[in-house]
Amino acid sequence: MKFKIASESENETKVVVKAGGFSMIIDEPENLGGTGQGANPVEYVLAALSGCLNVVGHIVAKEMNIKVGKISFEIEGELNPAKFVGKSDEERAGYKNINVKVIPETDADPEILKKWLIEMERRCPVSDNLQNETPVSIHL
Amino acid sequence: MKFKIASESENETKVVVKAGGFSMIIDEPENLGGTGQGANPVEYVLAALSGCLNVVGHIVAKEMNIKVGKISFEIEGELNPAKFVGKSDEERAGYKNINVKVIPETDADPEILKKWLIEMERRCPVSDNLQNETPVSIHL
Repeated sequence: MKFKIASESENETKVVVKAGGFSMIIDEPENLGGTGQGANPVEYVLAALSGCLNVVGHIVAKEMNIKVGKISFEIEGELNPAKFVGKSDEERAGYKNINVKVIPETDADPEILKKWLIEMERRCPVSDNLQNETPVSIHL
Repeated sequence: MKFKIASESENETKVVVKAGGFSMIIDEPENLGGTGQGANPVEYVLAALSGCLNVVGHIVAKEMNIKVGKISFEIEGELNPAKFVGKSDEERAGYKNINVKVIPETDADPEILKKWLIEMERRCPVSDNLQNETPVSIHL
């Protein structure tokens, strides 16, 4: 199954992305040198992770016969911008770690929910692509 | 530097995400069992990659003294949904590979542009998080 997007820059920090019939604006905030017209790329990564965990969370809940209603997510990640801006190569460019808090509306037992979380994480395409190496080929 | 998002599901496939003062809708298309109100999580990942490469591409172009105007990106990734939907564990859940075509408005020499691409890829936080292992902690 293939997924694709097309994206064009409107300025040095802002792109307009076409994906699946939808349009998205990605930018950097003004305090990071951007034009502040959209969430930034690394926030988009965390957003994608929440969307993915929601879908998989509901699929797995059905398989496990547990009732899960609305799921809320609080996700944060920490990175050092030094490599990104060209100041230092000491630390990696991307997130050093990502922390996901999952808050499901459910009466299920905490022990059952632990199993639910493990299966959710294991089968979510976005968490797989972050946790494990993914070949990215960049060319003209 | 910390980045964070908060996300809530509106149904089993759709989430509304708050990030950096902006709101995003992520969903699955109807042919994948969703309600078709936004691009899907794995398309968001490709979108994020384009936004990141645009920012880094312009930073690196300045450092290298090459003029780069608008940059267009065509990005695609291939995945097998079998693990995701619970049918088979034979292949990984996420993208097996991601292919990025970069189309810059520039008069720069192709040899110079190759160096530009390598530096862009090396310093982009999103390509780092995809290409290399990133710890993700998921908890209640």
